[in-house]
Amino acid sequence: MVQIAVMGYGVVGSGVVEVLQKNKDKIAKKAGQPIEIRRILDIRKFPGSPLADRFTDNFEEILNDTEIKIVVETIGGLDPAYDYVRRCLLSGKSVVTSNKELVAEKGGELLAIAREKGLNFLFEASVGGGIPIIRPLDQCLAANQVSEIAGILNGTTNFVLTKMIRDGMPFEKALALAQEIGYAERDPSDDITGLDACRKICILASLAFGRHVYPGQVHTEGIQNITLDDVRYASAFGGVIKLIGRAAKRGDGRLDCMVAPMILPASSRLAEVNDVFNGIMVRGDAIGEVVFYGQGAGKLPTASAVVADVIDEVKHINSPKLFGWGPGEDGYVSDHLQNPVSAMIRLKCGDTKAVRDEIEAGLGGCERVKVSNAPADELALVTPKTEEFRINQALKSVSGAKLLSLIRIADL
Amino acid sequence: MVQIAVMGYGVVGSGVVEVLQKNKDKIAKKAGQPIEIRRILDIRKFPGSPLADRFTDNFEEILNDTEIKIVVETIGGLDPAYDYVRRCLLSGKSVVTSNKELVAEKGGELLAIAREKGLNFLFEASVGGGIPIIRPLDQCLAANQVSEIAGILNGTTNFVLTKMIRDGMPFEKALALAQEIGYAERDPSDDITGLDACRKICILASLAFGRHVYPGQVHTEGIQNITLDDVRYASAFGGVIKLIGRAAKRGDGRLDCMVAPMILPASSRLAEVNDVFNGIMVRGDAIGEVVFYGQGAGKLPTASAVVADVIDEVKHINSPKLFGWGPGEDGYVSDHLQNPVSAMIRLKCGDTKAVRDEIEAGLGGCERVKVSNAPADELALVTPKTEEFRINQALKSVSGAKLLSLIRIADL
Repeated sequence: MVQIAVMGYGVVGSGVVEVLQKNKDKIAKKAGQPIEIRRILDIRKFPGSPLADRFTDNFEEILNDTEIKIVVETIGGLDPAYDYVRRCLLSGKSVVTSNKELVAEKGGELLAIAREKGLNFLFEASVGGGIPIIRPLDQCLAANQVSEIAGILNGTTNFVLTKMIRDGMPFEKALALAQEIGYAERDPSDDITGLDACRKICILASLAFGRHVYPGQVHTEGIQNITLDDVRYASAFGGVIKLIGRAAKRGDGRLDCMVAPMILPASSRLAEVNDVFNGIMVRGDAIGEVVFYGQGAGKLPTASAVVADVIDEVKHINSPKLFGWGPGEDGYVSDHLQNPVSAMIRLKCGDTKAVRDEIEAGLGGCERVKVSNAPADELALVTPKTEEFRINQALKSVSGAKLLSLIRIADL
Repeated sequence: MVQIAVMGYGVVGSGVVEVLQKNKDKIAKKAGQPIEIRRILDIRKFPGSPLADRFTDNFEEILNDTEIKIVVETIGGLDPAYDYVRRCLLSGKSVVTSNKELVAEKGGELLAIAREKGLNFLFEASVGGGIPIIRPLDQCLAANQVSEIAGILNGTTNFVLTKMIRDGMPFEKALALAQEIGYAERDPSDDITGLDACRKICILASLAFGRHVYPGQVHTEGIQNITLDDVRYASAFGGVIKLIGRAAKRGDGRLDCMVAPMILPASSRLAEVNDVFNGIMVRGDAIGEVVFYGQGAGKLPTASAVVADVIDEVKHINSPKLFGWGPGEDGYVSDHLQNPVSAMIRLKCGDTKAVRDEIEAGLGGCERVKVSNAPADELALVTPKTEEFRINQALKSVSGAKLLSLIRIADL
């Protein structure tokens, strides 16, 4: 019998308790012993719950309870989650978390404490909800040199883009619908601005390439400026717009890492990932291309990933897993403007021919993309692959044109 | 430093040696210590190899070498692999294998020996080549009650079907092409008849549902009788034909498990898995639907999965993983004729209206499927979902009609 505590009884935390109760026997068999929820931390009371007597609003009760060997953190955010998790580890308790902000910002430090203390700190649920990705990346693909990871890592924005692409619904309306259905929070800014996807690609990149990548190091753009016109032009080019988090190893050992809406060719495995689903592609030297697909969020998928980690920690209670990454470093993520990229640029201009000639003078041959019924003063070009700052230079030097949008083309 | 032996220096075995050498440093870091190849078993000599001095054709040299803690089996087939693996385990060596026939036929027994001896017996590479599936199924999805697993588990047949569907290439020509490219072996019968996919679904079903499923228990049909006419009718119905291995838990605790060509709706995630790729879908109570996609075979993908298992065994050399399933049982897999299914039946008949009426009298409303330029005496019907024996009964009782094909419709 292993005693655990759950901190935070929100959507994921209550799901963890539900899964642990519902699949109790299977879980005990998998873990080799029963798992007992000894304490649940929440400021609210749940008098009607069969576990009502386990609730506490006092973190110290968990911290000082030496019977509790594993603590699940599903509070979210950094404060107080970071302090609580750190103190749990320092006091000898292994931790499981679903908190991507915590792992993306503080994972390196917390993993180091866990290692030093002979404990486990696991976070399968922090990326891809119920999709197994952290463990496969660490274990199954351990024999590979991973060269690139890219994915649709945020279900909310993927739902909004799917509605825009499939139903021609404008951004604001699609977002309102997502909020109505419960796919987007009342304040959806972490999703829409790409920050959520950024945290997730940081976690994946840290694990795959062995060094902590901080969200602040990663150039991040959201989908808030994507219009139905962008969608139509992408379609005319034979692609779809998806919010992609991507990290690739460069020749100089640094990372090319970015979050932005990108145009995927319709033939890409990730182009077919729609609605709230997530898809994550891993490229490795031995494995070729592997794709993981499933629900990237949701109460029970996420909770099931948390519980899988709890089971793993019970199995490794006296033999911590070798797991983690080294410290981060300034300059480890390269300046995105220095990386080669092809992009679709859309411009409003008086003389489309003159503007095109001017841009081509700077960048070389561009492909023009046309849609039916476009205004005569609109020009859409796909640039050749070149360092991104050159595209910006070419755009700056052009006269008599206003940039409507610049969307990178993904090679995925 | 952990000493290992590799038995069988064919495609996969030589790939294992290659990956271990090429990614030596990364692997040592992951495993916590270097891995040294002490012996390679093959009846051939490789005098030019840098490891020439490690080769032996004498299994006893590996068996009796107490320095060797882990043995990789990539010989394939049951004889002598089964005997060798069994004796390795009995003598205290952990084993990694890529041999699906061995695991499907003898996995339960070998896992039991490993458990008794405090050793590990791992086989990630036996299903899906380099796609992580065994470990995610065991670990990441541990908190789920899995209800169904289904997949495209054989790359050779998927390549052949893709050529038939996309290029209208007849079966024989597509198979010849697969052999020419090296996607199919000179004797492709294990692939074409579905036996290879059958072994793989047996392994997945054993792991997911906890009881050994033997290939002999599973109704298995291959793709050898699929014609371009079938492909066209499937397309007219809005689907594609794929060779599917599928296992689902029935209400009575028994399994519905089968390998057969099935028509998938074009909207299915598995319908988009083409060429030599594999795709595996897992449905669980908490996780919903998760899909794994990648190269299901090939030297390096498969070798990388073997090496990942070796790393895991090094990490668990003194703490064997809880892993495996219970013994099999007669009658555990239900008679497929008793399970409800919908199927597309194609018939040659004099009076299509009379035949259709006769069949509908037995089965209820069927949907007629038509293709352009079909002979007037051809009738294709999609039956309602009913126990399969009822479809056979209805077909038997029909007069003046010859069955051309019966292909099940998959609900995936």
